[in-house]
Amino acid sequence: METISCIVPHDAGFSIPDKVNRETRPEGTRVNIMGVEVGGTEVVVIAGPCAVENAEQLAETSHAVKESGARILRGGAFKPRTSPYKFQGLGEEGLKMLKQISRATGLPVVTEVMDTRQVELVAGYADMLQIGSRNMQNYPLLKEVGMMRKPVLLKRGMMATIEEFLLAAEYILNQGNDQVILCERGIRTFETATRNTLDLSAVPLLKHYSHLPVIVDPSHGTGLRWMVPAMAKAAVACGADGLIMEVHYNPEKALCDGHQSLSPDEFNLLMRDLDKITSAVGRSLSVS
Amino acid sequence: METISCIVPHDAGFSIPDKVNRETRPEGTRVNIMGVEVGGTEVVVIAGPCAVENAEQLAETSHAVKESGARILRGGAFKPRTSPYKFQGLGEEGLKMLKQISRATGLPVVTEVMDTRQVELVAGYADMLQIGSRNMQNYPLLKEVGMMRKPVLLKRGMMATIEEFLLAAEYILNQGNDQVILCERGIRTFETATRNTLDLSAVPLLKHYSHLPVIVDPSHGTGLRWMVPAMAKAAVACGADGLIMEVHYNPEKALCDGHQSLSPDEFNLLMRDLDKITSAVGRSLSVS
Amino acid sequence: METISCIVPHDAGFSIPDKVNRETRPEGTRVNIMGVEVGGTEVVVIAGPCAVENAEQLAETSHAVKESGARILRGGAFKPRTSPYKFQGLGEEGLKMLKQISRATGLPVVTEVMDTRQVELVAGYADMLQIGSRNMQNYPLLKEVGMMRKPVLLKRGMMATIEEFLLAAEYILNQGNDQVILCERGIRTFETATRNTLDLSAVPLLKHYSHLPVIVDPSHGTGLRWMVPAMAKAAVACGADGLIMEVHYNPEKALCDGHQSLSPDEFNLLMRDLDKITSAVGRSLSVS
Amino acid sequence: METISCIVPHDAGFSIPDKVNRETRPEGTRVNIMGVEVGGTEVVVIAGPCAVENAEQLAETSHAVKESGARILRGGAFKPRTSPYKFQGLGEEGLKMLKQISRATGLPVVTEVMDTRQVELVAGYADMLQIGSRNMQNYPLLKEVGMMRKPVLLKRGMMATIEEFLLAAEYILNQGNDQVILCERGIRTFETATRNTLDLSAVPLLKHYSHLPVIVDPSHGTGLRWMVPAMAKAAVACGADGLIMEVHYNPEKALCDGHQSLSPDEFNLLMRDLDKITSAVGRSLSVS
Repeated sequence: METISCIVPHDAGFSIPDKVNRETRPEGTRVNIMGVEVGGTEVVVIAGPCAVENAEQLAETSHAVKESGARILRGGAFKPRTSPYKFQGLGEEGLKMLKQISRATGLPVVTEVMDTRQVELVAGYADMLQIGSRNMQNYPLLKEVGMMRKPVLLKRGMMATIEEFLLAAEYILNQGNDQVILCERGIRTFETATRNTLDLSAVPLLKHYSHLPVIVDPSHGTGLRWMVPAMAKAAVACGADGLIMEVHYNPEKALCDGHQSLSPDEFNLLMRDLDKITSAVGRSLSVS
Repeated sequence: METISCIVPHDAGFSIPDKVNRETRPEGTRVNIMGVEVGGTEVVVIAGPCAVENAEQLAETSHAVKESGARILRGGAFKPRTSPYKFQGLGEEGLKMLKQISRATGLPVVTEVMDTRQVELVAGYADMLQIGSRNMQNYPLLKEVGMMRKPVLLKRGMMATIEEFLLAAEYILNQGNDQVILCERGIRTFETATRNTLDLSAVPLLKHYSHLPVIVDPSHGTGLRWMVPAMAKAAVACGADGLIMEVHYNPEKALCDGHQSLSPDEFNLLMRDLDKITSAVGRSLSVS
Repeated sequence: METISCIVPHDAGFSIPDKVNRETRPEGTRVNIMGVEVGGTEVVVIAGPCAVENAEQLAETSHAVKESGARILRGGAFKPRTSPYKFQGLGEEGLKMLKQISRATGLPVVTEVMDTRQVELVAGYADMLQIGSRNMQNYPLLKEVGMMRKPVLLKRGMMATIEEFLLAAEYILNQGNDQVILCERGIRTFETATRNTLDLSAVPLLKHYSHLPVIVDPSHGTGLRWMVPAMAKAAVACGADGLIMEVHYNPEKALCDGHQSLSPDEFNLLMRDLDKITSAVGRSLSVS
Repeated sequence: METISCIVPHDAGFSIPDKVNRETRPEGTRVNIMGVEVGGTEVVVIAGPCAVENAEQLAETSHAVKESGARILRGGAFKPRTSPYKFQGLGEEGLKMLKQISRATGLPVVTEVMDTRQVELVAGYADMLQIGSRNMQNYPLLKEVGMMRKPVLLKRGMMATIEEFLLAAEYILNQGNDQVILCERGIRTFETATRNTLDLSAVPLLKHYSHLPVIVDPSHGTGLRWMVPAMAKAAVACGADGLIMEVHYNPEKALCDGHQSLSPDEFNLLMRDLDKITSAVGRSLSVS
């Protein structure tokens, strides 16, 4: 990896909790999801649909992203929707489809868990458990996944400070599970031109203060498909260990988040561009 | 330049004013500052101290940044300070020093103008006029620089939406001056770990909606010297046409913003790293 | 109640969900907590300590606030703390103490529930279930309390828009429980002089768009004890149906939020001042 | 005035500059605008149209607000508009109309000045100079009005912290002019249901830290006519020394801000309601 040009000691203005603190493990943590390592030299790309809709949609999309170099599949079975009248996900049926496609493609899967009562159920199907933005400070849920022996993908709350984000991760590590990946996914600001404001400064900040790997979600971070490539490249340029992106084989017909989902072709093009950036920062990317 | 992967037509949710609108000049505007072109293939770096303090400080810093590849010098003579009791700048004396170092190095200079009554004075010494964040909606000042025949560097207000930013630029173009560079320099959010939140999504947004060149200020955007390199690289990766950065030959002794100023050595290292990123996105950088 | 001076039809710019919509029940909903009615002419005050610490603290504080006119007791048994190393509450033991003091004083109690698995447990002791700010978008929890036949106090998320707040309430009503009180408790902004920014404009907005009662929490809304009286009065002046405030018999020794808790004497003084404001807006307050 | 219930010493977390500091003048400053005193027992109401449009509009509105108890007239001649294509005000012609109506009604007038070059011109017609939100950190302008012997109405920037607001006022006092009124007018947050988020907590904060009078602008603070009465009452309840409100004799035909302007009848009704609140907090209001 390239020289980090100017790390000067810095007083954070807040206390970094012990277990997530970079000083506790200066060499950094590598999280291992069924053989795929996040936090090493490789920049790992997680891709797939917002929600699992049906077997065909999931299969078409999954094979496409695998071919372009994605290393992990994403897809929601339990969906946290702002309105009670929107599609809430397929539930356990969706989990089964994820398991099947995981076997068929050989790619591990990550999916969200929202309820303490469902942690075991979800862990029975998924290779990594996702805690969504709205649950970043759902402490019983953090404790519950902290007791599992599965990697956790913890998304930043949309108005969480860096300090609060690290304290949320500390809840998980404090239960004995250090396989945690932090994910910047956009914060809420006054700006309305984008769905959220992707805060890429979170990447060097989190890497500086904590030993945990950091990935970026440019799909939710912008909410606009055409902006995803630019922000994905920027994320890698400032040190992200991976990306998580929404891809749908037919974005116009997606049951959720179609406006921010890439088509398989767009995803393929982006992977080629990303390959140049990862090389420029002394890292690697799996592209076919 | 590389393929823009997926420009899909997008409804901005707000109206883009006519004169700054990309549709008015699809090929983009190139701003020419005494022969240095911003908005073309080259990524242009502007560097120098926050404030002009004395001849030695300015000379040492200017020669150093020139040697590392900076194409334009920055330095404040009139400083907008939050407190009336902080160093307010050297005024016209500072402008004279800027003019001298510009002759000595051959680099054009950009400096801030804060008062409608001083626009002519500043324009007599500077090659580009800077409108600072606090004055982004100072309409008499925008009109005044709009009537000059000098390039203008317009910094985004720290809580200005993209729409308001474009409307502020429209005030300048509407007076007949289309040599305007837009500068993202961090917005104000709830986060306190950094001085501002650098909003890199502004880069693709502004390039998408407007034909004006866009540069990024990672020094004010983070307020932390050690974060500048990471964010500078990210800015170039997502499409910025240039960077403006604070460099001081002795940051610890700077009269303002020392904590966010790079040393000449740090700047030199960063330029080498930036060179790889510019290549990766199909652009060029002047590095020696 | 006084004349509402100028209700002009207004397009909210967002859709108000059906069940919480004022148009569904123009006369407004009254929530009944063991005989205490919120949403009528009386302005109802809820008071008590941040957390239940021990029997003595709870008893002393509860008797004091009752004497000054509080109609409902508050006190946390399960505490959502930003850090895993801070006091997490007494749990079921705390619930038992709340039940005892409720019997002793005759005042109903409200306490927070954080976990879907504990809704029945908490409902066995409490007269009203509180959903805290961090759980405003914890949809499984909202559904669970929606299935109970207990009143719910729903606090606004610190980053939630009015639209999202109403949609969260809709999740509860959609399960058949319309006994919901909305609580403004401060939002997160750039300001750091206060813990949160108390958004009193939420009061007329929520009353305008929804039929549910609205109360205000000036303790969390400011985080500063000396500001609580001013903001409590303002809340009543702009139409709040009630207030929830932290009172501790010895704020300096409180295990949490002592800096924002009123002493019993301060609370007593405030109630007398509030009495004048409630009269001025044509409502009543229970003060002894 | 009523008892201030619980002023506890508080560490602001920031430094209060000397000249505006409450400790410098514990008894508070009274600003005198041609005989009308702001900062004493009376709550002073400033009212009038957003912009001066023509003689008839100004006269009709001014006589109406005077009859309802307004003590000072407001009206814009130089208007800071976000878009260069919107009505920019009548300029000096508008100032002359303001002077005439001031003579006819006997009410002093306040109007905005935007340009250092126009301070003397505006001061020749107006009784109080307004610095608008967008110019709160226009330091040359602050210094210029600081050198005048006219009262200044300083509006809070829409992104300004309390600390920055006080530092802006300090710029004025530092030039020798202590006749400054601070005005809270809404800050920018993530909320989009209102034009701005009226931050009423600024009232007790500013009164606590500074000796300057504080007034509130519920018209800009909400952007919605029907919300103005509720927020005006809340402002007085938490300690505001006055209010500034937009009134137009025909809001539907206003050239600017009609949606947030009260009609004369609505204003009259509001003044009667405000009278009860001012009494409840031990102050007085001029109502006929």
